Amino acid sequence: MIDFDSASVQLGHGSGGRLSHQLISELFIRVFSDGHPDPLDDAARLTTRANRLVFSTDSFVVDPVFFPGGNIGDLAINGTVNDLLTSGGTPLAISAAFILEEGFPFRDLKTIVETMKKAADVASVRIVTGDTKVVERGKADKIFITTTGVAEVDHDYAIDCSQIRPGDAIIVTGTVADHGMAILASREGLSLEATIASDTASLGRVVHRLLAAAGDSVHAMRDPTRGGVAAALNELAESSSVGIELIEAAIPIRPPVAGACEILGIDPLLVANEGKMLVAVAPDVTEAALAAIKADPLGSEAAVIGHAHASHPGRLTIRTPLGAGRILDMPLSDPLPRIC
Amino acid sequence: MIDFDSASVQLGHGSGGRLSHQLISELFIRVFSDGHPDPLDDAARLTTRANRLVFSTDSFVVDPVFFPGGNIGDLAINGTVNDLLTSGGTPLAISAAFILEEGFPFRDLKTIVETMKKAADVASVRIVTGDTKVVERGKADKIFITTTGVAEVDHDYAIDCSQIRPGDAIIVTGTVADHGMAILASREGLSLEATIASDTASLGRVVHRLLAAAGDSVHAMRDPTRGGVAAALNELAESSSVGIELIEAAIPIRPPVAGACEILGIDPLLVANEGKMLVAVAPDVTEAALAAIKADPLGSEAAVIGHAHASHPGRLTIRTPLGAGRILDMPLSDPLPRIC
Repeated sequence: MIDFDSASVQLGHGSGGRLSHQLISELFIRVFSDGHPDPLDDAARLTTRANRLVFSTDSFVVDPVFFPGGNIGDLAINGTVNDLLTSGGTPLAISAAFILEEGFPFRDLKTIVETMKKAADVASVRIVTGDTKVVERGKADKIFITTTGVAEVDHDYAIDCSQIRPGDAIIVTGTVADHGMAILASREGLSLEATIASDTASLGRVVHRLLAAAGDSVHAMRDPTRGGVAAALNELAESSSVGIELIEAAIPIRPPVAGACEILGIDPLLVANEGKMLVAVAPDVTEAALAAIKADPLGSEAAVIGHAHASHPGRLTIRTPLGAGRILDMPLSDPLPRIC
Repeated sequence: MIDFDSASVQLGHGSGGRLSHQLISELFIRVFSDGHPDPLDDAARLTTRANRLVFSTDSFVVDPVFFPGGNIGDLAINGTVNDLLTSGGTPLAISAAFILEEGFPFRDLKTIVETMKKAADVASVRIVTGDTKVVERGKADKIFITTTGVAEVDHDYAIDCSQIRPGDAIIVTGTVADHGMAILASREGLSLEATIASDTASLGRVVHRLLAAAGDSVHAMRDPTRGGVAAALNELAESSSVGIELIEAAIPIRPPVAGACEILGIDPLLVANEGKMLVAVAPDVTEAALAAIKADPLGSEAAVIGHAHASHPGRLTIRTPLGAGRILDMPLSDPLPRIC
């Protein structure tokens, strides 16, 4: 039996022998599969009703592993679920591959795995298969997790990042920059840590409500993670060949987050979010779409933050409270490394 | 433009901004998608004809990254393809998530990515989506790759590790221990390196020929990677509640590999293979199955190496040339860390 209170991961736990099996059966199968492994072992069986699928993968290397509002575990599940949801599909299954540093405490691994299971349950998705590798001390930083997901596309809407049309409203489902600033505060030991928490959350219910209300009129969705709202909207503007103008005063942000960004000289529109979606909808359904999103607790602070237009395709601009406009370029890189 | 001859990976290349986009468009999309990205960007669309799918993931942390017979790139594609093939299904798509150490040379990354594309082409599978994270120097060891695959199950055979029946023949599709000994030789700078190469290969054609010849009579398949033939057959014996007896003299092994194992005191049955499949088939089709496998160049050295029986369920034994039998336990761990 693994001593989850005081033992730590050894190289042998990633080597395919009895130690690997012990880890798989005493932790992964017990937590993820409620004790029932798939008979295929190295692979999982899925049954799909739809013949259109969406497939997405992300590696998570966040530093620190535990932070206000979550840990690498829920981040890894929610991040991949939200990527799948940008298609409007229904997440079906997730795989989880772990790269562990020799010496990583089993207690922390157990906490992370249990957090993943909770996040998967909230998102109504199963963690069906996985892998574990262990590398020598100093050859990785504690724990890296790669999650990959499959979703069924059980609707006929044309939702993708090339579908935004001039006139579309741009909605954000809540406040911006919470995740990135929580990580930064936690990493730097800033005293603002207490009031800023990651927004990590999966948005299946929000997206479901939105599609029920606005269906065909939802043109694109994108979760603004690394690079923040600015990177995501630059990508959408380019892919759809539209201009996008934001109204700065309309962008929801928590006062402590705004304050921390100002003190540190960081533009909150460049900071990662992990529980938000950007949505482009046809102008005639804007109010209905916004109301549907706001009806969910995770969307209660949603707002229309701008619109798409036909001039300057590919360009993102922002209008300040004084009425001036400026170009908001794709950032060279996220100001914070290892944010997710 | 990235200077693939002399530049190296920077933290910004994993941050979601312009540097990330440059890497994605100048390397990943150019090589993997022949320049045509999926319109969904963060996720890929798939269409399946079958409603039964198989889903598998593996992280690759092999050290060294380049070794005789291959590199981490083809290993990552072939490993996941072979896991999918254990179901008898047809691989449909693969995702590739990279964790790169700051300072990793772009020249090496380009070689690895091009090797992945070649391996995917050989396996007739597309690399459809991916992710890149970069961690600081010293926080990862050069490059880790996680591949995840989806296969369609377009047959009605009941193939899984619980289906082996007493009397079934156990076939291995070729020589054992090549991969692990190639890595060891390469890592230790042994002079035997020149004559031992990894067997990394995907086995789609071999499995296709086998199913065409033996169909319903194929009961289980398993690729003997970490922990080697001994770990894989122990798992199969346990899952199927049968005993398995191997005939030592029947197990194909290249003389330099056998010699190296003997010198180093390593049991070749514990050493990883990356281009071999263990197959359990009904006794009446043994010859037909073996002939079908041997008809393929990747199966030309296939052999019947043992059989399943009803006594001692879950136990793997091996009969030596002198006729003595001994128990071949599940190893505690693979004798070689970071073999894949």
